[in-house]
This record gives sequence, C-alpha cells and structure tokens, in this order.
Amino acid sequence: MKSSHKPLIINGKQIASEILEELKHEISDLRAKKVTPGLAVVLVGDNPASEVYVRNKRKTCEELGIDSFAYDLPDTCSEKKLLKLIDKLNADPKIHGILVQLPLPRHINEKRILEAILPEKDVDGFHPVNVGRLLNGEDCFVSCTPAGCHALLLRSGIKPAGKHVVIVGRSNIVGKPLAALLMQKAANANATVTICHSNTRNMSKYTQEADILVAAMGVPEFIKPRMVREGAVVIDVGVNRISDPTRKSGNRLVGDVAFSGVSKKAKAITPVPGGVGPMTIAMLMKNTVKAVHMTLAKR
Amino acid sequence: MKSSHKPLIINGKQIASEILEELKHEISDLRAKKVTPGLAVVLVGDNPASEVYVRNKRKTCEELGIDSFAYDLPDTCSEKKLLKLIDKLNADPKIHGILVQLPLPRHINEKRILEAILPEKDVDGFHPVNVGRLLNGEDCFVSCTPAGCHALLLRSGIKPAGKHVVIVGRSNIVGKPLAALLMQKAANANATVTICHSNTRNMSKYTQEADILVAAMGVPEFIKPRMVREGAVVIDVGVNRISDPTRKSGNRLVGDVAFSGVSKKAKAITPVPGGVGPMTIAMLMKNTVKAVHMTLAKR
Repeated sequence: MKSSHKPLIINGKQIASEILEELKHEISDLRAKKVTPGLAVVLVGDNPASEVYVRNKRKTCEELGIDSFAYDLPDTCSEKKLLKLIDKLNADPKIHGILVQLPLPRHINEKRILEAILPEKDVDGFHPVNVGRLLNGEDCFVSCTPAGCHALLLRSGIKPAGKHVVIVGRSNIVGKPLAALLMQKAANANATVTICHSNTRNMSKYTQEADILVAAMGVPEFIKPRMVREGAVVIDVGVNRISDPTRKSGNRLVGDVAFSGVSKKAKAITPVPGGVGPMTIAMLMKNTVKAVHMTLAKR
Repeated sequence: MKSSHKPLIINGKQIASEILEELKHEISDLRAKKVTPGLAVVLVGDNPASEVYVRNKRKTCEELGIDSFAYDLPDTCSEKKLLKLIDKLNADPKIHGILVQLPLPRHINEKRILEAILPEKDVDGFHPVNVGRLLNGEDCFVSCTPAGCHALLLRSGIKPAGKHVVIVGRSNIVGKPLAALLMQKAANANATVTICHSNTRNMSKYTQEADILVAAMGVPEFIKPRMVREGAVVIDVGVNRISDPTRKSGNRLVGDVAFSGVSKKAKAITPVPGGVGPMTIAMLMKNTVKAVHMTLAKR
C-alpha cells in the first residue's frame, strides 16, 4: 500500500502577488527619483478575450504605479497606421515598454509589427533579437509565460540544474523559449532539456523520465497519471475551457494535465487556474521595470 | 555472435563537393543575368588558424565564381574602425554576405561587431535576429556548422522526423542552433530533441537513447561505444588535435567520438576529418547565394 501523498500545490497566485509587491517597492523608489515606468498597451479590434487581458494588464499597472498608456484601435486600423503608432511609441521617452496584444486582425502582418518594436522596449520578449539573445544566453527580455514558469520553480525551491526537464509543446511563446531558458549554462538553469511535440513517437517514454515535466501543448488533460514519474514536478501551462454540465456556466477551465490523478504522483504541481496564469502579468510588469533600469543604465 | 557490421561512413567531403557543384551552376546562372554574388571576408590580426580558414573561404569563393572581397586588418585595428568598415560593407550593393572571422582580438567586443552586420548580409547566422528567427521557425540564415550537420543527414537519406536526436554540447555555434533547427515543425525537422552538456547527470542514460547522436562538446573521443545504441546515427562535430608520437607531425585530429569502437555499433557515422568539417564552407557559400536571392526578391 502506498503511503498517503500530499504534493506541494504551487500557488501561482500567491507567488505572483509576492513579485508584484516587490515591484511596487522598486517602482516607488524609481518614482521618488522622478522616474515613472511607462507601459503602452495597444489593442486592435474587439476580441473579447483580448479585452479582458488588456484590462487586467492596465489595472495591474495602475496598482503598481506604472503609467499605462492605452491605445485602442478599431478592427479596421491599417498595418501602416499601426506601424506609425509603434514608431511614435519607440521614440517616446515616457514609454519604457510596448505591448501589442495578440492576435491582430488578419489583414495585419503580426511578424512585421512585432519586429517594428524596439528590442529595448519589447517587454513581451517576442522580437527575434530578444529570442536570439535568449538562445545565446545573453541578457534580454524573456517572454512572460516561460519567465513565469521559471520563477514559479525557483520561488518554490525547485532548482532546474542537473534535472531532466521535459517540455511537451513547441510553441514560440512557451515551449521553445522555455527550453532555451533552461538549457543555458547559468546557475538558475543548467537543466538537461528534452522538447516533445505532435511528432514525438511514444510520448510517454519521454514524459515518464522527466524530473520536471512542463505541459504546454494546449490539449485538455493530455498528461495522464501513467505518463508521469512518481515524485516529478509538474508545471501545467495549459488553459482550456471544456464543457461541464454540472457547472452553472456550463463549462470549466482545465490545464493540459489531468490534475486529480497526476497530483497523486507528483512531488509538486501547478493548478489550473491559479498556477502559471497569474505569473504572466507579474513577469510583464517585471520586464517593464527592467526596461526602465536599462534606460537608466544608458544615460 | 554478432553479425559482421559495416556502418555507412558519411562522406562529408563528397557531399560538400556535390553542394558546391550545384552552387556553381546556380552562380553561373546568376552571372549570366549580370548578378555576381559577393562575399566580404574580414580578418583581424594574424591568428594562424584563422588565416587558414579565411584562405579556404576565399579560395572556394573563387572556384565557384563568387566575388570575394578581402579585408585584412592589423591586430591593432580599433573597434570603431571595424564598425566603420562593417557600415561600409552593409551599404555596398556588390556585397551580399559579410563574414567576420572569429575570434577577434580581445579589445574588440565580438557581440557588438556581430550585431552591427545587417541581418540580411549575416551569412554566418550569428546575428541575434537570425538566431531568433531560427528558434521561431522563420526563414533565416542558419549558422554554417549546424546547417552542415542537417544537410549531411538529409543527403544521407536520414530523416530526423520522429527520431530522438540527442545533442551533447550547448555552444552558440553548434549545439543550441542545431537543437533549434531540428525541433521545428517542418518536414525536414520534427525531431524530438534532447540537449545535454557539462551539467548533465548520467550522460550515458541520454546518449544511449539517441536515434541520432550529435557530439559537439569539444572533448576528444568523449563518446565511447557503451554510450551509443546499436544502430544509432552518429554525427561528430568535434575537431581536436591530440598528440600521437607514431605520426611524423607528432599529433593527429580526432573528433568527440571514439570512432573505431563507436563505428562498430553505429548504423551511420561521420569521420573526423572528412565529416562535418568540409560542410561548413559549403553552407557558407550556400548562405551567400541565398543572400543574393533575397536581394533579388526585394527588387
């Protein structure tokens, strides 16, 4: 008979609020020196999910003392006009970070827009210069979700060095940059990293070997208990809405991990919601403050 | 008793010369249209190894019909002067590719020089924009050694898709970009990739699982037969000079793989010399021709 097992439930909400609290002090010090961090948040169109994200980002700015500059453009805004706005924001010394909420309307080339943002204001870490510096192990803006996963691990006392990290999913916003981050020769990284995806044969073979398993493929409850090693750390990046007739709303949020079963084997696990999710905004705020420090260092 | 085993010895010299032959035709077509590919090769100082590399690159240009522009600067050349030269080369329409031979003298910031090269002339693929595009799965210049490893596999009929590729070594010029290349969702990639390094615990556990094992850590004959799975494909990127009193020169070149033993287990293996080595120049030439096509597409 197995001994009763209680995994550490990694509380992303609490860790995020600790980070925000630290940032609040840092920002208050900056403001005392007459430097107010400024973040431009650009929203094009009226995607309801994007509107929620943008509202949360702006609200968090306000709570921390970051000046939030709102640019809400109609769905019909041309690429040229958006590029012109970005040029203006690039040149504005009051604005330290620029965030363009994705997805953009179809008639706008996302890649062209993201590459137009100055790398030193690219607090989302999506500009290829930042992605390249990340892979090269240089100082850069790390995109917010992978940075959030990393911070969750470190602040839970889980050191990736020497561990086998298996990442399932190779998106540009999670899987690939997280792999790049954790494989570096650096005290807080130094993991042996495997990246799996839709073309991986015999997926369980890899996931079962993970000391730290990161699920980021966007398939509801894909990671089953039999796929996880006893004592593994499990980070669930998935956010999937599935139907649930027992709920009043008719649906509920689940991650990419079958939580109830996997949590019985894991040493530590992030819940959904309340795990990786809250970290993303916290890391965006952290990147904005980093952008301020970069500006000050250049003076 | 084991059946007698004859591995495919992947002939890098021959594959490289096939690629060069193909490029020769392509270049001759370009020249017929009054477009002559131009490569600037910049050498600072008098490092003997660098001088050999640069000489080979220039000679290969000549053989193919690429205009090679030579810039040999003294060891005392300032960073400012080198940056000025790069600006000039960036602006010169006769020059499609710019290569600055590394290493640079200590008083010059290598990163600053590499970032000064226009990404569309960065045929070495070292600019962070190209590294970032590589990780993002976008069109870019892939640095020459990883591109050479990839071409060796494909031209030997070895498809990475669905295979477990284990890369030992995480340098910015081989391990990390090769991992980025092979993990992409693309017909010629799609591998499950593991990257191991000096902080990997129990290295053999990983190397023994490789369908395709890439040795790129720069340790002479590090990969022993017991570390390799029967029937694996082994790519040896190492070039190490070790002493050998039986040779007239007193030394010989070996790779990162103990060739004589490992070749008895491998299905296919690259020798050193004559494996990955000759591919690097071929891929540099290929990138230079790609740079020409990019210029033409922009017209």
